[in-house]
Amino acid sequence: MLIAYEGTNYCGWQVQPNAISIQKLIEDALSVILREEVNVVAAGRTDAGVHALGQVAHFRSITETDPYKIQHSLNGLLPLDIRILEITPASPTFHALRCAKTKIYTYHLNLSRIPDPFRRFFSLHVPYKLDLSLLEKAAGCFVGTHDFTSFANEAHLGSAAKNPVKTIYSLEIIPEKGGVRLEFKGNGFLYKMVRNIVGILLDVAKGKRHPDEIQQILNQKNRRYAGMAAPSQGLFLMHVGYEEYPKSV
Amino acid sequence: MLIAYEGTNYCGWQVQPNAISIQKLIEDALSVILREEVNVVAAGRTDAGVHALGQVAHFRSITETDPYKIQHSLNGLLPLDIRILEITPASPTFHALRCAKTKIYTYHLNLSRIPDPFRRFFSLHVPYKLDLSLLEKAAGCFVGTHDFTSFANEAHLGSAAKNPVKTIYSLEIIPEKGGVRLEFKGNGFLYKMVRNIVGILLDVAKGKRHPDEIQQILNQKNRRYAGMAAPSQGLFLMHVGYEEYPKSV
Repeated sequence: MLIAYEGTNYCGWQVQPNAISIQKLIEDALSVILREEVNVVAAGRTDAGVHALGQVAHFRSITETDPYKIQHSLNGLLPLDIRILEITPASPTFHALRCAKTKIYTYHLNLSRIPDPFRRFFSLHVPYKLDLSLLEKAAGCFVGTHDFTSFANEAHLGSAAKNPVKTIYSLEIIPEKGGVRLEFKGNGFLYKMVRNIVGILLDVAKGKRHPDEIQQILNQKNRRYAGMAAPSQGLFLMHVGYEEYPKSV
Repeated sequence: MLIAYEGTNYCGWQVQPNAISIQKLIEDALSVILREEVNVVAAGRTDAGVHALGQVAHFRSITETDPYKIQHSLNGLLPLDIRILEITPASPTFHALRCAKTKIYTYHLNLSRIPDPFRRFFSLHVPYKLDLSLLEKAAGCFVGTHDFTSFANEAHLGSAAKNPVKTIYSLEIIPEKGGVRLEFKGNGFLYKMVRNIVGILLDVAKGKRHPDEIQQILNQKNRRYAGMAAPSQGLFLMHVGYEEYPKSV
């Protein structure tokens, strides 16, 4: 499934007790439609307030149903801030998380003096002056293969210990109306890694830290040197790439 | 004052009993800041769910205060979906509604098969096929000076009887991501006039009515021939033009 959602009203992708998650809403709707218990696995477990334009998830079902009909029924049952863009049959070995080869996240910074009321849930308003050349320089320090332990939070909900070595293929700063967006392309991202990187990029662009500190922090392999994570509302999961993405039949 | 707001959470611009209006929130905040009762008059009384990027409003005050300080305090007191973009001193004869010479409204239509979850409060999703050349033809029928009685609702809250003859300078259909927007430029608009026009434009573009019916409906000068108003969430007040707009000092 290819899924778009606004994360504002949810506790995030993942099922949590006493909170409404996107995963739970989709699982409940699928269970109603297919009349069997369905477990849905996503490529990226986005946090509360984080949005997605290109989330990918898979589920297994013993019921043979036209995927287009499932999509239509799902969109009928789900709230309007979650939309199933596509459902296609996959091979039995396809796994939305494990088979993902690349991910693109964007983080939007609103740099206008007065924050845009229409972007309040979709960008971080930065009310101070940023040095964009320092931002560019700091961003360059993250590109390549690094041990990102210093920029990863521990996930609360028992996910197995992950390899902290990840590759960021590119981190571009792209001007857009009222500000810039940071576009991260990599082979995978640890828990809160994008928001932690944005946090330190902002510290550098404000002049609070020197770009050279970034390599030192990476070397320290300790989360407490990296500072504050940027808030969730600016973050979008844009795209998940696979070697073989299920094709429509 | 130049004001931008998302109308989703409000009963509209105008004060109403037992509902939260944008006017009331701004008046209350101004009264706190200036320590006097303040009445705010807007150029366009937008309805519930209608948005503004360029609303203009004026108020009179006996307190001499730096406009920039008032703006800053207002933005501190107001919720984040209402932002004061600008405050400038005006001549005693300036009146935001009566001096307005031109207004631009846009109405956004989302024409993708699956509605964009991020546009659900900012566009009308049209799930059927529209004939854009018929839409263009129908739009052309409204350009010029007409008696718009058939496309005006009666305002509930005792506004004086208005001259129903208005001039639409242009009504453009502009492609945008996922759909089109209709841009109305005119010397003034009656209550619900834009939404009533959009309603019939959609009827024509769906093939439910013939473009030639529009002139007949205009001639009939009776609201009940025009059909349904389009819903509020697609509508934005973009700009109000004045012969002399107050300049910053």
